Amino acid sequence: MRIAVIGVGLIGGSIALAARQRLDAETAGWDPDPLALTGAQARGALDRVSPDIEEALDGAEAAFVAAPIGALPGLVAQVLDAAPERCVVTDVGSTKRLLKPLHEDQRFVGGHPIAGAETAGIEHARPDLFDGATWYLTPTTTTSGLLYERLHRLIGGLGARPVAIDADAHDRMLALVSHLPHVLANVLVAQVAQTATGEGERLPATGPSFRDATRVAGSNSAIWTDIYLSNADAIAVAVDETIERLAEVRERLRAGDPAALTDWNEAAGADRRRLLEAQLASGPLHELRVSIPNRPGVVAELALELGRAGVNIADLALYPAPDMSEGVVALWIAGEDTAARAEQLIAEQGFPVARP
Amino acid sequence: MRIAVIGVGLIGGSIALAARQRLDAETAGWDPDPLALTGAQARGALDRVSPDIEEALDGAEAAFVAAPIGALPGLVAQVLDAAPERCVVTDVGSTKRLLKPLHEDQRFVGGHPIAGAETAGIEHARPDLFDGATWYLTPTTTTSGLLYERLHRLIGGLGARPVAIDADAHDRMLALVSHLPHVLANVLVAQVAQTATGEGERLPATGPSFRDATRVAGSNSAIWTDIYLSNADAIAVAVDETIERLAEVRERLRAGDPAALTDWNEAAGADRRRLLEAQLASGPLHELRVSIPNRPGVVAELALELGRAGVNIADLALYPAPDMSEGVVALWIAGEDTAARAEQLIAEQGFPVARP
Repeated sequence: MRIAVIGVGLIGGSIALAARQRLDAETAGWDPDPLALTGAQARGALDRVSPDIEEALDGAEAAFVAAPIGALPGLVAQVLDAAPERCVVTDVGSTKRLLKPLHEDQRFVGGHPIAGAETAGIEHARPDLFDGATWYLTPTTTTSGLLYERLHRLIGGLGARPVAIDADAHDRMLALVSHLPHVLANVLVAQVAQTATGEGERLPATGPSFRDATRVAGSNSAIWTDIYLSNADAIAVAVDETIERLAEVRERLRAGDPAALTDWNEAAGADRRRLLEAQLASGPLHELRVSIPNRPGVVAELALELGRAGVNIADLALYPAPDMSEGVVALWIAGEDTAARAEQLIAEQGFPVARP
Repeated sequence: MRIAVIGVGLIGGSIALAARQRLDAETAGWDPDPLALTGAQARGALDRVSPDIEEALDGAEAAFVAAPIGALPGLVAQVLDAAPERCVVTDVGSTKRLLKPLHEDQRFVGGHPIAGAETAGIEHARPDLFDGATWYLTPTTTTSGLLYERLHRLIGGLGARPVAIDADAHDRMLALVSHLPHVLANVLVAQVAQTATGEGERLPATGPSFRDATRVAGSNSAIWTDIYLSNADAIAVAVDETIERLAEVRERLRAGDPAALTDWNEAAGADRRRLLEAQLASGPLHELRVSIPNRPGVVAELALELGRAGVNIADLALYPAPDMSEGVVALWIAGEDTAARAEQLIAEQGFPVARP
């Protein structure tokens, strides 16, 4: 498979490395920074360094666009112009609403791997960066089923777990689980550094809990200013709710009731365990075969419906009928209970489903 | 040296292990839980398992009380009753105001090591738990200089860096750097778990930033309910300020000005670096010799003054004159600049100071 990677920093470089090493893909890369391209080639991420986007896309079956969010709409449009008719195009931006209009092109599927590192740049790229990571995809009713299947399997091959999600739901969710923690880390370091300074006292000694809580404070502005801007409304809503919750805790503290404080603390521990356990896929894979009409968006609908219900599609294969009028999509789901739930959901969607 | 350890969980057990292995001390231990005592002896932390507090204190030159905060006032009073006249008594509680009245006894100095682990209990105790950690001490004007010196050196010998601080300042500071991060972690997990559930959606995938930010969510209630209660007013003040800061960030987000968001994010990064760098002691040790009158509290005054100015006393030795009417305290300070600042501060306090 020929894969184009537009932007070869930490994420793009890691995609290229994993694609070459694990999928035996042939990779072509382009980056506005010539040093990034040289670095990517030196690290063995690229078969071909391309002088421009058009050349990188020549013969590509899949294209990944990895750039700061502000540059994405223009860059993805340029890639779609240059991409072959049967090439799936995706991006890796941390917010997804901005790219919704581009889904008018059936070849485009928004994407977002929940992976990264403290250190940006091609020199930190590695083929195992996505191992076990959730990789959100935002197909719509215009998405080509065949191209979605290709992308889903490709991302699984990179080591990640593809999960379909609506772009708006994605941005609301990321506002909570990623952007809000960054806001809180920024606020916390500023408060500690400035309050201590304000009192004319030494800067305080900080323990491991503080260091962990603020590890992401002041993350790379070249990436994060764009994230804050592109998701400002959803983050503001999340911040509002945090303020309400903090005001509630403050009243609990002032009331000084041990049982109420213990309940609050225990509930937080239980919530955290529940969140972490939800990450663990479990059980052997079960195959479901679903008959679907051959129209755009059907595969995306299925994937989105299962994603909403918390069902991960471990693998997915599409078998079109010879006349392309209909087809069968095979889904592999981990765990018997989850597979049974998926089967029911699919039947409720009106698609014939069976276990082979 | 004979050391009594009252309460042999993670902290008390680690003190006993370090005291035996590094200071060749003889340790006697007591705990209300017989299993903890058996465990401490099995791990080689204790020379003597004591049937009661009185027996543990027999012949002790130093006593550490390691218990949940709620139990500390009563337990420390009991230890002071049983302790020999020349025994220094300290505790390891995370808040210090509650124990201020006990400083009427010149043998007592409040203490708090900024160390710990996710896992409580004697089975996780280890002799290197305090290596490089700040260990706050809260001497007052009633504190015996000789006993303070002994405790300071003892704590240095356990691997930690003793820092004198006023009990109120300690509690305000810990509200910021420790208790507030715990509150934010609790609020964040609850918000993420409950918002996601409320929308009828799957629990979201959480990345490393979320896991780090919430690592301390729902920490052991047996310890933390007491911490929240004993420092509720200071934590409530800190939470109030966080709410104000979050409201300011929310306005910045809604205004959508890239430069303002970048400035805010960059400032947070700079604040974090400043806080982490402040932890690093640096430079060779310089000795200062200070002549002091032999009255209680003078050594504590010196230590507190230097602590307020951010000067760490790496080591400290007291040489009383034969008639005990006056004495010399030798201080070792890391870094020439810091030593010069310390010299000036001490001179301003009215004590003759010289470099030997």
